[in-house]
Amino acid sequence: MGKLFVDISVSLDGFVAGPNQSLEQPLGEGGEGLHEWVFGLKAWRQTHGLEGGETNADSEVIEETMARAQATIMGRRMFSGGAGPWEDDPNAHAWWGDNPPFHHPVFVLTHHPREQMVMQGGTTFTFVTEGIESALEQARAVPGGGDIGVSGGGEAVQQYLAAGLIDDIQLHVVPVLLGSGSPLFGGALPGAPRRLECTRSLQSPTGVQHLRYRVIR
Amino acid sequence: MGKLFVDISVSLDGFVAGPNQSLEQPLGEGGEGLHEWVFGLKAWRQTHGLEGGETNADSEVIEETMARAQATIMGRRMFSGGAGPWEDDPNAHAWWGDNPPFHHPVFVLTHHPREQMVMQGGTTFTFVTEGIESALEQARAVPGGGDIGVSGGGEAVQQYLAAGLIDDIQLHVVPVLLGSGSPLFGGALPGAPRRLECTRSLQSPTGVQHLRYRVIR
Repeated sequence: MGKLFVDISVSLDGFVAGPNQSLEQPLGEGGEGLHEWVFGLKAWRQTHGLEGGETNADSEVIEETMARAQATIMGRRMFSGGAGPWEDDPNAHAWWGDNPPFHHPVFVLTHHPREQMVMQGGTTFTFVTEGIESALEQARAVPGGGDIGVSGGGEAVQQYLAAGLIDDIQLHVVPVLLGSGSPLFGGALPGAPRRLECTRSLQSPTGVQHLRYRVIR
Repeated sequence: MGKLFVDISVSLDGFVAGPNQSLEQPLGEGGEGLHEWVFGLKAWRQTHGLEGGETNADSEVIEETMARAQATIMGRRMFSGGAGPWEDDPNAHAWWGDNPPFHHPVFVLTHHPREQMVMQGGTTFTFVTEGIESALEQARAVPGGGDIGVSGGGEAVQQYLAAGLIDDIQLHVVPVLLGSGSPLFGGALPGAPRRLECTRSLQSPTGVQHLRYRVIR
């Protein structure tokens, strides 16, 4: 059975997005800075239909994660950026473009039913209103034999952690302090694992630390 | 002029002590786990007057920090552990023993005046009621030409960060999730630096990541 992994960029002080997220600033104030390390990479540019770009330790990490995942799970706010009220907005997905970078099925956790969207390049957005276990089940039912990635936001990660469903966590620790915003770890999570094992640590040329942990059950 | 550095063990979810700190559990529930990586090290055992112990990447990091600091600054709770009301308790320092592991002057941030304590082995505890700048000034006035370490707790680190006084930060990231407790970074700090540069990353045999950052001003 495919593993459930978290793969997410986080500030040194533990935020996955800055404060005051909005349509203009879907990642909040300073949140863009968490992802600067990927924009110049060949691996990232390719998935966005762009040519050129760098190849280095960072791009290997990106390629690896993409090759590993057969499906992605995300929270509603990650799907719609700052758009809202998204349930009435047919363009809520606009910030992902017509050809989103996933190229596989994406399951969006939400309370609002919405019809599945078939995008260019193999990405589909399926809206799951029956909770995190249902989303995981649907993601695992995707053919492919791969793993399932939870790519954010913080609340989605926290829900899966609290349910004890996460197998491993890869953090891209970016050397910035945001001070506030959306926390990756949101305080006490009763069912969350307590002990992890650091299985890999890579330093990127951009000063980002790629830390990988296995959950010890 | 000596640099002001932070050197502190922190859980992967950003806590420097667990919840419910008390005299019996000065580091809170699970907080002891943040320091397990040091207890077996020769460098740690020596400063506590014990023989034997391991020598590895972890102990080099410890030795380096000890050699670097001519003085240490800490918050009141770090001085007294869970003891309280500490101002009436002549044994508030008991958890450090008669021969504390610093072997240099320690400045304790507090609101309660108390006479300086001269311990065995070169450690002195000086109680500073005039605020963080005064403590830093006094620590810099210590002869030696070394740097000044802020060793915790979270509130002391946050005060120096907010004042823009920290030059570099070394985090020992321990692969545990505490869920709650005393946070290293306590939310919005108006004067705190935003950008850092990762200047070193060492992986320990115990899975602890030693990450060093320089503050970019």
